[in-house]
Parts: sequence; C-alpha cells; structure tokens
Amino acid sequence: MPVTAHTIPKPLIVIKIGGSTASSAQALASISTDLASLQSKYSFIIAHGGSAQTNELCKRMNITPRFHTSPTGVKSRATDAEIIQLYTMACGGQANSQIVCALHSAGVNAVGLSGLDGKVVQAKQKIFTAVDDSGKQKMIRDDFTGKIEKVNAELLHALLASGYTPVVAALAISESNTPLNIDGDRLMASLASALHADKAISLTDVDGYYKNFPNDLVPALTSSELEAAMQNAGAGKASGGMKKKLMGCIEAINGGVSEVIIGNGAVPAPITKLLAGAGTHITKN
Amino acid sequence: MPVTAHTIPKPLIVIKIGGSTASSAQALASISTDLASLQSKYSFIIAHGGSAQTNELCKRMNITPRFHTSPTGVKSRATDAEIIQLYTMACGGQANSQIVCALHSAGVNAVGLSGLDGKVVQAKQKIFTAVDDSGKQKMIRDDFTGKIEKVNAELLHALLASGYTPVVAALAISESNTPLNIDGDRLMASLASALHADKAISLTDVDGYYKNFPNDLVPALTSSELEAAMQNAGAGKASGGMKKKLMGCIEAINGGVSEVIIGNGAVPAPITKLLAGAGTHITKN
Repeated sequence: MPVTAHTIPKPLIVIKIGGSTASSAQALASISTDLASLQSKYSFIIAHGGSAQTNELCKRMNITPRFHTSPTGVKSRATDAEIIQLYTMACGGQANSQIVCALHSAGVNAVGLSGLDGKVVQAKQKIFTAVDDSGKQKMIRDDFTGKIEKVNAELLHALLASGYTPVVAALAISESNTPLNIDGDRLMASLASALHADKAISLTDVDGYYKNFPNDLVPALTSSELEAAMQNAGAGKASGGMKKKLMGCIEAINGGVSEVIIGNGAVPAPITKLLAGAGTHITKN
Repeated sequence: MPVTAHTIPKPLIVIKIGGSTASSAQALASISTDLASLQSKYSFIIAHGGSAQTNELCKRMNITPRFHTSPTGVKSRATDAEIIQLYTMACGGQANSQIVCALHSAGVNAVGLSGLDGKVVQAKQKIFTAVDDSGKQKMIRDDFTGKIEKVNAELLHALLASGYTPVVAALAISESNTPLNIDGDRLMASLASALHADKAISLTDVDGYYKNFPNDLVPALTSSELEAAMQNAGAGKASGGMKKKLMGCIEAINGGVSEVIIGNGAVPAPITKLLAGAGTHITKN
C-alpha cells in the first residue's frame, strides 16, 4: 500500500499530459472536465512538456529544431542557449498557462509551476552520447538538458493540502540556478515517486502500449515484463516517444508507485476510462 | 499602523521590478543580493511586467509592437489575440523565470506565479478610449488588457507563511478564464493593498519622481500633493511610464499602504538605500 503523505487528504494521482493532447484546446477541455468530476475523490498533480509549442515558436523565428539521437534510438531535443530560452517561454509560459486556464474553466483551482519554483525539481546538466546521421558517436556536453536529481515535495504538499492542483512544466533548476529542459514522463515519474502517489497516468495520442503498433494493445503487464520487452524486439518497435514513456513508467514503479497507466488523452472522460480499465496498466513484478 | 495578516510573520514589502532593471542580469543580481540580506527582517512579494521581453520576441518575429495612447497621453501596449500569447510567454515564462533564477542564486527561495495561478489576480477586459495619430478618439473593445478587480490573497499568504518569496508576473485571469495583460505598477498597488503590505516599492531606471526631469528630484510628498501635481504641469511633464507609476502609487496609498517609494533599481543595494531614505517617498495626505 502506498505511503500517502499526511498533508494530502485524498489519494494522489500524477498525470502527464503529452502528445497532441497537451496543445489541443478540445482535449484539454475534456481532460479538465474529467478532473473536475474526480476531484472529490482524488488529488492531482499535472506534469507537462512543451514540445509542440517550442517547435511552433522555432518555426515562427525560422529556426529549425534539432534533435539528438541516443545509441538506442531515443530522440531528444537539442537544447542550446537559445533553445532553452524559447523552451522556457513555450513550456513554462504558454503551455503551462493554457493548461491552467483550461482547468480553471472546468472548476479546478490550478496553480502553474515549473521545477524552478521553490526549486521543486532539481537536475544536473546531462553529458550524453549521441549518434549523428552517419552513425558516428559523440559526447554532448553543452546541452541544457537535465537529469532529475531531487524533487522538493514540500511546496507541492502545501499546495495540495490547500486544495490547489499543481501544474508542473518540465523545466528543472540546475546546480547553478539556470533552467534545464527535462523529459515530461521522467518528471511524472519523479513527482509520483517523491510524493508517494497512488498512481501515475501518462496521457498520449494512442490507446496505450502496443506489442506491434497499431496491433496488439497490451492491457496489463508488470514492470519486469516491460523491462524484458524493452530489451528485445517488442518495445524495440515502439517509437522514440513511446520508449521514453515506457522508461518513465518503469522509473515510477521502481520509485514505489503501485500502478502506472498509459492511455489516450484525446477522448471524452479519459482519466475515468483509464481508471476503469482502459489503456495499458503497469504494475510491480 | 497597517494591519498585517496573521499568517505573514514579518512586515511585508511589495516590490515592482520595472524598466530596464527587469531584464538586466546585473541589476537583477544586485536586487536579489539585497533582498537576501533583508529577508530576515521583511517578507517580500515581487511584481513585474515583461515589456522588454515582449518587444524582443516581436522583433524576432518581425512584428512591430503597437501602442494605444489615452486622451491624457498614457501609452499602453495594444494587445491583440496574437500579442497576448507572446506576452504570456515573455512575461509569464521568460521574465518570471529570469527573476526566479536570480533570486535563487542569491539564496532567496522564490516561487514564480502569474495572476492565472489560483486566480490570484482577477481582471475585467478593459474597454477604453484611445487617440490616434490625427487626434481622433475611438473606443477600443477587443484588447486583451485587464483592469484588476480582485486579488485572491490566500495563495500568497500560504506561500509567505511557508517562507517562499512569490514573484508575480503581470498577467490576470479574465471572467472567461483567459490571460489578460495588466500594468505592473497597478499590480504592485493591488497586491500591496490586498495583503495589507507595510510598504510598496517601485524600482525603475531613474532615482525617483522629478518635478522637472532630470531636475528637482522630489524626496517626499503626500498622495494629495501628488494628485494635485498630476492635475497640472508638474506631473504633466512626467513620461507616460512615470505617469503610470504615479497612478500605481496613489492607488496603493488609497488602498491603505502607508508608504510607497519610487527609486532606482540599477544601483547596488537598491532596496536598502530606498528604505534608508533615497528615492521619492509618498505617504498619505
């Protein structure tokens, strides 16, 4: 049974809003209405990124977004000094405000934050290996991307205890007090672990994790089965975005969260449906 | 003697960071160091706008910022549907994060907010008269600029009581739960009034209010003297930005704040100097 911090009056669910649901007014309205109907039973923390908004901002400035590819094929945004500024605006400003406003419209008293605020999410600047188009590996040392080191749960506890729904943008604070781009699913996992959440839910554009997308949706599996699948062809067929999501799910389970659900955020009452059994449910062992 | 809410342990000062100080890393570092040295004696709330950052974003997108001029000569940003999006990013995302990071670097535990969060600042979309270049007046009804109607002090009280320094971006939430651009000095006045602050301080690029800029700095005056001066040539010579600042100061005094100080934010230890007598000190009657 999960340990629930004494200051949080109801079972806590951490929800990552991702994919196109994070920037679609219609999807955000339907997620928000659903959360409003569930808020007497649960407390919620929302985590989100800002990829679509950052790409849009880059496009308007005639900047072509660049991505690094890891040796295992996972893509991540190349975040130089200019891009971290745009990402801060797009993720921390635009995407966060859009979700906060959608929640208020549905009657959920949302408070937008990023990991910078109260140093809620502390990260270390990543040094990582990327593969270029010709397959050559190189070390990337100057990217403003972070690996989450610590979640400062105190501010989130205080907000939840006062009845607010925190909406956390995927920005962390570095050791030198600058913003770092962090992955939204990893953020979900870190928040859910640090706050001893009962469940974590990753909302995306598809109905869950598929053995052979778009065939064979997996309704339930254990984290060990998922880890094994990720070692072989099963999850190897998953897209880069889905791989990151799966890694986030495993992190959440390893961090003590008893159940993580991946499912479609672009349907009516998405959270209610996932809690009732839709999507892919991942549990320990 | 001002009524201090029981949840705030120390005298409260609301500070507007404006002018070029709001986007200068050096000025923000020196303001932050000063606040850190004063935080054992006072609680602080920071208010800020995002004009410079919005102009910069517009420039990078080849958008020419437009301004409305009131019949009394006060300029305000023309905020259409596109500009409110950019303003949300620049003010709520970039400017807010920059101040939050500068404060953390100095050891002040800052939490960035905007008026959207917890509906801290509620506003009504303005309908106002503007004068065009030929002197013709017209009603402006489609501008995403707000007149502050209500400050929800509860969230700010909770943050202050837990030892956080709230940094509030000049964005309010409308009756239909959308972002509105609000004036930073008015925001300062509304926050200081609603939270029964002991003082409000408006930091800018000049040493205070001048009778005949750059001559005759006024070290102290009452709000009645200031109101009288604004009716005649005295404050008539003040720039549009200074006029708004003076209106904000009068609003704060009328809202029950016992002292408002206007002064230079771009000097070492600016707050300490203003509290010791520098700048223009405005008091009731």
